[in-house]
Amino acid sequence: MKGVHDNERISAEIIAIERAALNRWGKGDPWGFTEISADEVTYFDTGTKRRTDGIEALRQLYLPREGRIKIERYDMLNPKVQVHENTAVLTFNLIDYVLTPEGSTKEVHWNATEVYYKMDGQWKIIHTHWSHTRSTSQQQNM
Amino acid sequence: MKGVHDNERISAEIIAIERAALNRWGKGDPWGFTEISADEVTYFDTGTKRRTDGIEALRQLYLPREGRIKIERYDMLNPKVQVHENTAVLTFNLIDYVLTPEGSTKEVHWNATEVYYKMDGQWKIIHTHWSHTRSTSQQQNM
Repeated sequence: MKGVHDNERISAEIIAIERAALNRWGKGDPWGFTEISADEVTYFDTGTKRRTDGIEALRQLYLPREGRIKIERYDMLNPKVQVHENTAVLTFNLIDYVLTPEGSTKEVHWNATEVYYKMDGQWKIIHTHWSHTRSTSQQQNM
Repeated sequence: MKGVHDNERISAEIIAIERAALNRWGKGDPWGFTEISADEVTYFDTGTKRRTDGIEALRQLYLPREGRIKIERYDMLNPKVQVHENTAVLTFNLIDYVLTPEGSTKEVHWNATEVYYKMDGQWKIIHTHWSHTRSTSQQQNM
Protein backbone atom coordinates (compact mmCIF):
# COMPACT_ATOMS: atom_id res chain seq x y z
CA MET A 1 0.00 0.00 0.00
CA LYS A 2 1.24 3.42 -0.91
CA GLY A 3 0.61 6.32 1.47
CA VAL A 4 -1.40 9.43 0.74
CA HIS A 5 1.78 11.44 0.25
CA ASP A 6 3.11 8.91 -2.24
CA ASN A 7 -0.11 9.16 -4.21
CA GLU A 8 0.02 12.96 -4.19
CA ARG A 9 3.60 12.88 -5.40
CA ILE A 10 2.78 10.37 -8.15
CA SER A 11 -0.29 12.38 -9.22
CA ALA A 12 1.77 15.55 -9.54
CA GLU A 13 4.45 13.69 -11.49
CA ILE A 14 1.95 12.12 -13.91
CA ILE A 15 0.13 15.43 -14.51
CA ALA A 16 3.47 17.17 -15.21
CA ILE A 17 4.42 14.47 -17.75
CA GLU A 18 1.04 14.84 -19.48
CA ARG A 19 1.25 18.64 -19.55
CA ALA A 20 4.72 18.55 -21.09
CA ALA A 21 3.39 16.37 -23.93
CA LEU A 22 0.28 18.57 -24.34
CA ASN A 23 2.49 21.66 -24.57
CA ARG A 24 4.44 20.10 -27.44
CA TRP A 25 1.23 18.88 -29.10
CA GLY A 26 -0.18 22.41 -29.11
CA LYS A 27 2.87 23.61 -31.03
CA GLY A 28 2.41 21.00 -33.76
CA ASP A 29 4.77 18.43 -32.24
CA PRO A 30 2.95 15.13 -31.65
CA TRP A 31 6.17 13.26 -30.72
CA GLY A 32 6.02 14.24 -27.07
CA PHE A 33 3.21 11.71 -26.74
CA THR A 34 4.90 8.93 -28.68
CA GLU A 35 8.08 9.41 -26.61
CA ILE A 36 6.14 8.71 -23.41
CA SER A 37 4.03 5.87 -24.86
CA ALA A 38 4.96 2.22 -24.41
CA ASP A 39 5.47 -0.21 -27.30
CA GLU A 40 2.21 -1.92 -26.30
CA VAL A 41 0.13 1.29 -26.34
CA THR A 42 -3.52 0.98 -27.37
CA TYR A 43 -5.22 4.12 -28.62
CA PHE A 44 -8.63 5.59 -29.43
CA ASP A 45 -9.42 9.06 -30.73
CA THR A 46 -12.22 10.74 -32.65
CA GLY A 47 -10.41 10.32 -35.97
CA THR A 48 -10.00 6.55 -35.83
CA LYS A 49 -12.45 3.91 -36.99
CA ARG A 50 -10.82 1.11 -35.00
CA ARG A 51 -8.48 0.94 -32.02
CA THR A 52 -4.87 1.72 -32.96
CA ASP A 53 -2.44 -0.87 -31.55
CA GLY A 54 1.23 -0.34 -30.86
CA ILE A 55 3.68 2.55 -30.91
CA GLU A 56 4.55 2.22 -34.60
CA ALA A 57 0.89 2.45 -35.65
CA LEU A 58 0.51 5.51 -33.39
CA ARG A 59 3.52 7.19 -35.03
CA GLN A 60 1.92 6.60 -38.44
CA LEU A 61 -1.37 8.04 -37.21
CA TYR A 62 0.35 11.18 -35.89
CA LEU A 63 2.67 11.76 -38.85
CA PRO A 64 0.14 13.74 -40.96
CA ARG A 65 -0.62 15.94 -37.93
CA GLU A 66 2.97 17.12 -37.48
CA GLY A 67 3.13 20.90 -37.85
CA ARG A 68 -0.63 21.11 -38.37
CA ILE A 69 -1.87 21.78 -34.87
CA LYS A 70 -1.85 25.23 -33.29
CA ILE A 71 -3.31 25.43 -29.83
CA GLU A 72 -3.03 28.84 -28.24
CA ARG A 73 -3.65 27.54 -24.74
CA TYR A 74 -5.60 24.86 -22.93
CA ASP A 75 -7.39 24.28 -19.66
CA MET A 76 -6.87 20.89 -18.03
CA LEU A 77 -9.99 20.57 -15.87
CA ASN A 78 -10.07 18.58 -12.67
CA PRO A 79 -7.28 16.06 -13.40
CA LYS A 80 -7.49 12.93 -11.26
CA VAL A 81 -4.95 10.14 -10.91
CA GLN A 82 -5.97 6.72 -9.59
CA VAL A 83 -2.83 4.92 -8.43
CA HIS A 84 -2.69 1.14 -7.90
CA GLU A 85 0.68 -0.52 -7.63
CA ASN A 86 2.64 0.63 -10.71
CA THR A 87 -0.42 1.74 -12.68
CA ALA A 88 -1.77 5.30 -12.68
CA VAL A 89 -5.03 6.16 -14.46
CA LEU A 90 -5.08 9.87 -15.33
CA THR A 91 -8.42 11.36 -16.39
CA PHE A 92 -9.40 14.94 -17.12
CA ASN A 93 -11.54 17.18 -19.25
CA LEU A 94 -9.64 19.45 -21.57
CA ILE A 95 -10.57 22.67 -23.34
CA ASP A 96 -8.30 23.46 -26.27
CA TYR A 97 -8.29 27.01 -27.65
CA VAL A 98 -7.37 26.17 -31.23
CA LEU A 99 -6.04 28.77 -33.68
CA THR A 100 -7.90 28.38 -36.96
CA PRO A 101 -6.30 29.07 -40.37
CA GLU A 102 -8.53 32.18 -40.51
CA GLY A 103 -6.84 33.52 -37.38
CA SER A 104 -9.72 33.09 -34.98
CA THR A 105 -9.84 30.84 -31.94
CA LYS A 106 -12.26 27.98 -31.43
CA GLU A 107 -12.85 25.87 -28.35
CA VAL A 108 -12.63 22.09 -28.58
CA HIS A 109 -13.75 20.08 -25.54
CA TRP A 110 -12.32 16.67 -24.71
CA ASN A 111 -12.68 13.72 -22.37
CA ALA A 112 -9.23 12.26 -21.80
CA THR A 113 -8.04 8.94 -20.39
CA GLU A 114 -4.33 8.13 -20.07
CA VAL A 115 -3.32 4.87 -18.41
CA TYR A 116 0.31 5.04 -17.28
CA TYR A 117 2.42 2.10 -16.16
CA LYS A 118 5.82 2.43 -14.53
CA MET A 119 8.36 0.24 -16.29
CA ASP A 120 12.13 0.39 -15.74
CA GLY A 121 11.60 3.37 -13.46
CA GLN A 122 9.74 5.42 -16.09
CA TRP A 123 6.04 6.18 -16.44
CA LYS A 124 4.81 5.22 -19.91
CA ILE A 125 1.34 5.45 -21.43
CA ILE A 126 -0.09 2.00 -22.17
CA HIS A 127 -3.55 3.24 -23.19
CA THR A 128 -5.00 6.54 -24.47
CA HIS A 129 -8.64 7.45 -25.16
CA TRP A 130 -9.62 10.90 -26.47
CA SER A 131 -13.24 11.76 -27.19
CA HIS A 132 -15.32 14.88 -27.57
CA THR A 133 -17.22 16.01 -24.55
CA ARG A 134 -20.94 16.31 -25.07
CA SER A 135 -21.78 19.80 -26.22
CA THR A 136 -25.06 21.46 -25.36
CA SER A 137 -26.11 21.19 -29.01
CA GLN A 138 -25.80 17.41 -29.04
CA GLN A 139 -28.51 14.98 -28.17
CA GLN A 140 -27.87 12.22 -25.70
CA ASN A 141 -27.97 9.06 -27.80
CA MET A 142 -26.80 6.32 -25.51
CA MET B 1 5.73 -11.60 -13.75
CA LYS B 2 2.69 -13.45 -14.92
CA GLY B 3 3.05 -16.09 -17.62
CA VAL B 4 1.36 -16.13 -21.01
CA HIS B 5 -1.19 -18.66 -19.78
CA ASP B 6 -2.05 -16.50 -16.78
CA ASN B 7 -2.64 -13.53 -19.07
CA GLU B 8 -4.84 -15.59 -21.39
CA ARG B 9 -6.87 -16.80 -18.44
CA ILE B 10 -7.24 -13.28 -17.04
CA SER B 11 -8.19 -11.90 -20.48
CA ALA B 12 -10.91 -14.51 -20.90
CA GLU B 13 -12.19 -13.82 -17.38
CA ILE B 14 -12.31 -10.04 -17.90
CA ILE B 15 -14.05 -10.34 -21.29
CA ALA B 16 -16.65 -12.69 -19.78
CA ILE B 17 -17.35 -10.20 -16.96
CA GLU B 18 -17.77 -7.38 -19.48
CA ARG B 19 -20.05 -9.44 -21.73
CA ALA B 20 -22.29 -10.37 -18.81
CA ALA B 21 -22.75 -6.66 -18.01
CA LEU B 22 -23.30 -5.78 -21.69
CA ASN B 23 -25.95 -8.51 -21.95
CA ARG B 24 -27.86 -6.96 -19.04
CA TRP B 25 -27.37 -3.43 -20.44
CA GLY B 26 -28.93 -4.48 -23.75
CA LYS B 27 -32.06 -5.61 -21.92
CA GLY B 28 -32.48 -2.27 -20.19
CA ASP B 29 -30.65 -3.23 -17.01
CA PRO B 30 -27.75 -0.85 -16.37
CA TRP B 31 -27.02 -2.30 -12.90
CA GLY B 32 -24.77 -5.05 -14.19
CA PHE B 33 -22.17 -2.34 -14.73
CA THR B 34 -22.61 -0.64 -11.39
CA GLU B 35 -22.35 -4.01 -9.61
CA ILE B 36 -18.91 -4.59 -11.11
CA SER B 37 -17.70 -1.00 -10.67
CA ALA B 38 -15.59 0.09 -7.70
CA ASP B 39 -16.55 2.90 -5.34
CA GLU B 40 -13.76 5.01 -6.85
CA VAL B 41 -14.94 4.56 -10.46
CA THR B 42 -14.34 7.46 -12.85
CA TYR B 43 -16.50 7.58 -15.97
CA PHE B 44 -16.83 9.27 -19.35
CA ASP B 45 -19.50 8.75 -21.97
CA THR B 46 -21.00 10.69 -24.85
CA GLY B 47 -23.85 11.99 -22.73
CA THR B 48 -21.74 13.64 -20.04
CA LYS B 49 -20.32 17.15 -20.02
CA ARG B 50 -17.76 16.40 -17.31
CA ARG B 51 -16.22 13.25 -15.88
CA THR B 52 -18.53 11.40 -13.51
CA ASP B 53 -16.80 10.47 -10.25
CA GLY B 54 -17.77 7.66 -7.92
CA ILE B 55 -20.26 4.81 -7.90
CA GLU B 56 -23.14 6.83 -6.46
CA ALA B 57 -22.86 9.46 -9.22
CA LEU B 58 -22.78 6.66 -11.79
CA ARG B 59 -25.95 5.12 -10.36
CA GLN B 60 -27.68 8.51 -10.65
CA LEU B 61 -26.48 8.84 -14.25
CA TYR B 62 -27.82 5.41 -15.16
CA LEU B 63 -31.14 5.67 -13.32
CA PRO B 64 -33.04 7.40 -16.19
CA ARG B 65 -31.75 4.76 -18.61
CA GLU B 66 -33.27 1.83 -16.74
CA GLY B 67 -35.73 0.01 -18.98
CA ARG B 68 -35.03 2.36 -21.85
CA ILE B 69 -32.36 0.47 -23.76
CA LYS B 70 -33.14 -2.34 -26.17
CA ILE B 71 -30.15 -3.80 -27.93
CA GLU B 72 -31.00 -6.76 -30.14
CA ARG B 73 -27.42 -7.97 -30.31
CA TYR B 74 -23.90 -6.60 -30.34
CA ASP B 75 -20.51 -7.38 -31.84
CA MET B 76 -17.51 -6.97 -29.53
CA LEU B 77 -14.68 -6.40 -32.00
CA ASN B 78 -11.09 -7.38 -31.28
CA PRO B 79 -11.14 -7.16 -27.47
CA LYS B 80 -7.68 -6.79 -25.94
CA VAL B 81 -6.67 -7.00 -22.30
CA GLN B 82 -3.39 -5.49 -21.10
CA VAL B 83 -2.53 -7.06 -17.74
CA HIS B 84 -0.02 -5.53 -15.32
CA GLU B 85 0.04 -6.76 -11.74
CA ASN B 86 -3.58 -6.51 -10.54
CA THR B 87 -4.70 -4.10 -13.26
CA ALA B 88 -6.29 -5.17 -16.54
CA VAL B 89 -7.05 -2.63 -19.28
CA LEU B 90 -9.80 -3.97 -21.55
CA THR B 91 -10.35 -2.16 -24.87
CA PHE B 92 -12.61 -3.01 -27.78
CA ASN B 93 -14.78 -1.59 -30.51
CA LEU B 94 -18.46 -2.37 -30.16
CA ILE B 95 -21.30 -2.39 -32.64
CA ASP B 96 -24.71 -2.22 -30.99
CA TYR B 97 -27.78 -3.19 -33.01
CA VAL B 98 -30.31 -0.99 -31.26
CA LEU B 99 -34.06 -1.52 -31.53
CA THR B 100 -35.72 1.82 -32.18
CA PRO B 101 -39.21 2.71 -30.89
CA GLU B 102 -40.36 2.45 -34.54
CA GLY B 103 -39.31 -1.20 -34.60
CA SER B 104 -36.31 -0.85 -36.87
CA THR B 105 -32.67 -1.57 -35.98
CA LYS B 106 -29.87 0.98 -36.08
CA GLU B 107 -26.15 0.43 -35.64
CA VAL B 108 -24.26 2.42 -33.02
CA HIS B 109 -20.46 2.17 -33.07
CA TRP B 110 -18.35 2.59 -29.95
CA ASN B 111 -14.80 2.84 -28.69
CA ALA B 112 -14.67 1.29 -25.23
CA THR B 113 -12.12 1.42 -22.42
CA GLU B 114 -12.63 -0.47 -19.16
CA VAL B 115 -9.86 -0.41 -16.56
CA TYR B 116 -10.29 -3.28 -14.11
CA TYR B 117 -8.46 -3.67 -10.81
CA LYS B 118 -8.52 -6.81 -8.71
CA MET B 119 -9.44 -6.01 -5.13
CA ASP B 120 -10.36 -8.56 -2.46
CA GLY B 121 -10.17 -11.27 -5.10
CA GLN B 122 -12.70 -9.59 -7.41
CA TRP B 123 -12.18 -7.66 -10.63
CA LYS B 124 -13.84 -4.24 -10.43
CA ILE B 125 -13.99 -1.42 -12.96
CA ILE B 126 -12.11 1.65 -11.72
CA HIS B 127 -12.46 3.62 -14.97
CA THR B 128 -14.82 3.55 -17.97
CA HIS B 129 -14.67 5.58 -21.19
CA TRP B 130 -17.30 5.19 -23.94
CA SER B 131 -17.13 7.26 -27.11
CA HIS B 132 -18.50 7.05 -30.63
CA THR B 133 -16.24 5.62 -33.24
CA ARG B 134 -15.58 7.90 -36.17
CA SER B 135 -18.18 7.29 -38.82
CA THR B 136 -17.43 7.73 -42.51
CA SER B 137 -19.70 10.78 -42.59
CA GLN B 138 -17.68 12.60 -39.91
CA GLN B 139 -14.75 14.87 -40.56
CA GLN B 140 -11.53 14.36 -38.68
CA ASN B 141 -11.28 17.40 -36.46
CA MET B 142 -8.38 16.72 -34.14
